[in-house]
Amino acid sequence: MADDLKSTFLDVYSILKTDLLQDPAFEFTNESSQWLEQMLDYNVPGGKLNRGISVVDSYKMLKQNQKLTQEEIFLSCALGWCIEWVFLFYLLTLFISLSLSLCLCSVTRRGQPCWFRKPQVGMIAINDGLLLRNHIHRILKKHFRGKRYYVDLVDLFNEVEFQTTCGQMLDLITTFDGEKDLSKYSLEIHRRIVQYKTAYYSFYLPVACALLMAGENLEIHSDVKNVLVDMGIYFQVQDDYLDCFAEPETLGKIGTYIEDFKCSWLVVKALERCSEEQTKILYENYGKSEPSNIAKVKALYKELDLESAFMKYEKESYEKLTKLIEAHQSKEIQLVLKSFLAKIYKRQK
Amino acid sequence: MADDLKSTFLDVYSILKTDLLQDPAFEFTNESSQWLEQMLDYNVPGGKLNRGISVVDSYKMLKQNQKLTQEEIFLSCALGWCIEWVFLFYLLTLFISLSLSLCLCSVTRRGQPCWFRKPQVGMIAINDGLLLRNHIHRILKKHFRGKRYYVDLVDLFNEVEFQTTCGQMLDLITTFDGEKDLSKYSLEIHRRIVQYKTAYYSFYLPVACALLMAGENLEIHSDVKNVLVDMGIYFQVQDDYLDCFAEPETLGKIGTYIEDFKCSWLVVKALERCSEEQTKILYENYGKSEPSNIAKVKALYKELDLESAFMKYEKESYEKLTKLIEAHQSKEIQLVLKSFLAKIYKRQK
Repeated sequence: MADDLKSTFLDVYSILKTDLLQDPAFEFTNESSQWLEQMLDYNVPGGKLNRGISVVDSYKMLKQNQKLTQEEIFLSCALGWCIEWVFLFYLLTLFISLSLSLCLCSVTRRGQPCWFRKPQVGMIAINDGLLLRNHIHRILKKHFRGKRYYVDLVDLFNEVEFQTTCGQMLDLITTFDGEKDLSKYSLEIHRRIVQYKTAYYSFYLPVACALLMAGENLEIHSDVKNVLVDMGIYFQVQDDYLDCFAEPETLGKIGTYIEDFKCSWLVVKALERCSEEQTKILYENYGKSEPSNIAKVKALYKELDLESAFMKYEKESYEKLTKLIEAHQSKEIQLVLKSFLAKIYKRQK
Repeated sequence: MADDLKSTFLDVYSILKTDLLQDPAFEFTNESSQWLEQMLDYNVPGGKLNRGISVVDSYKMLKQNQKLTQEEIFLSCALGWCIEWVFLFYLLTLFISLSLSLCLCSVTRRGQPCWFRKPQVGMIAINDGLLLRNHIHRILKKHFRGKRYYVDLVDLFNEVEFQTTCGQMLDLITTFDGEKDLSKYSLEIHRRIVQYKTAYYSFYLPVACALLMAGENLEIHSDVKNVLVDMGIYFQVQDDYLDCFAEPETLGKIGTYIEDFKCSWLVVKALERCSEEQTKILYENYGKSEPSNIAKVKALYKELDLESAFMKYEKESYEKLTKLIEAHQSKEIQLVLKSFLAKIYKRQK
């Protein structure tokens, strides 16, 4: 992505932050505005920002790359930031609930300890997560209240948040409710978890925001939604694959899905292919953190040749998605969808 | 409140629950709908439901007690339930964050252990809290999307949620950030915490909902908001007083604000009145759970005659609020506000 776009994007963050620190709906004390500013700067702008910037890119393509007005640039960046806020909201609240359910002892992000692991922050982070969530609506209200598409925008964020939370619920009750039980895992459950927990907010939401800004009615674009949801599922399958098979140096982290007892594409695929013998091995070793247990699971994955299973899945997904995209009547929307697909196809990290 | 109203109100709960369990925006598995139904029935309908039913009562008064249509009854009950949902959302998320910050060992509600303390529920409760929060917008969208006041309703819930979360932030960073420090406590901080954390959602929100349903524009009713916010602050001061001075039998629970190091009206009032000697006692004993420490604080409260200080505060608040209410031009709104005041004036629990 162009550096000037990224710097414009970051300028908008400063504006939004200033708005939030001066929000007339609350009487900030010095302590609370310091807390908020520190919390925002610590959590919000550090990442790759791809999700957020994809709103601006998508909107440009929908406008056939005409030069955007200052207002269009600002508003599309603001919506991009709302999506970054959504992402962080889940990161804070879900990281806490997950890591507490799992009793993980050290959760880090971007090389630094998670916000809620910092001394003194502790469980205040749950509330900070809620605050991030509220900020989205403060931003939408301040900058979009007068727009024709304001109601649809608010409904969109609420619906996607609802779907994501339902996906998290399904993941939590499947993975962490009571004793570990692999028999709950299947391709179908995996698909539902990733569709709701990940696909809607990280693939559909940015494009839906751009469509609304471009004056489109989302109800007639269910085909766009379906393509992006499928793409999101494909993205998560890659994530599951890379967690186990990518080099940690390339991936930038060490995979933990096996010891985390994650309902990953690899384990559900393995369950499909296992002999009775192999199923026994999987049940005995999956979700345990001893290196020996992890090694046995990885060996089984190789034995079952999940690598080629993934290659096959990747090829088929790509072809299916390309066909669906090219069937779309709007060239602009095709461009948007293709740019998303191009970003993730055969990614190594 | 009339029993038939309560039973109508509970009938509406069943309808809303059925909607939520069949929400087309998510593909429920049997496990997830069972989980959701159990979570809702465990958390939602058990309480006194005063907050929720006050929406229906207020709406009736605004309509000069004309007989309401079936739709008006259903919609005002639905909004009442949204407020119960808001309340439970905070109870779940804040109870968790607070009790984890405090490392409370046994938090109970209504005589039963908190949802999140039940075996296996654990931190999934954080997500359940988020789910409750999302339900509010599912309910609003399903039943109010076509109404003229839909946008204002959604903005209202979002703004009040934002204010409540900010109040919680202020409470958390004042009370639990780092070491216990009484010097952070003052009447001013206490007022801000209770105004934002409690007053908006439990006093202003129900009336604001009724006003919107009655076709009123909230922007011209800031005086109503101010009265209700003052009433909410008065209510919380009563709560702080009763926690220490009411008989546990009457109160229905044993007060814990002293050991919880709560920024309560009593402690800030005490700090105002303390000699150096007495301040020392307060610093040494407040926020400790040993019976001897608690006893010393209570003795000091008596010594400083906080009982009469409270009586004086209660009398003055009542007179001030009555004057403000009677100054209002609308007789219907006067009735609504007086009914709220009557419910809490000199309450013993």
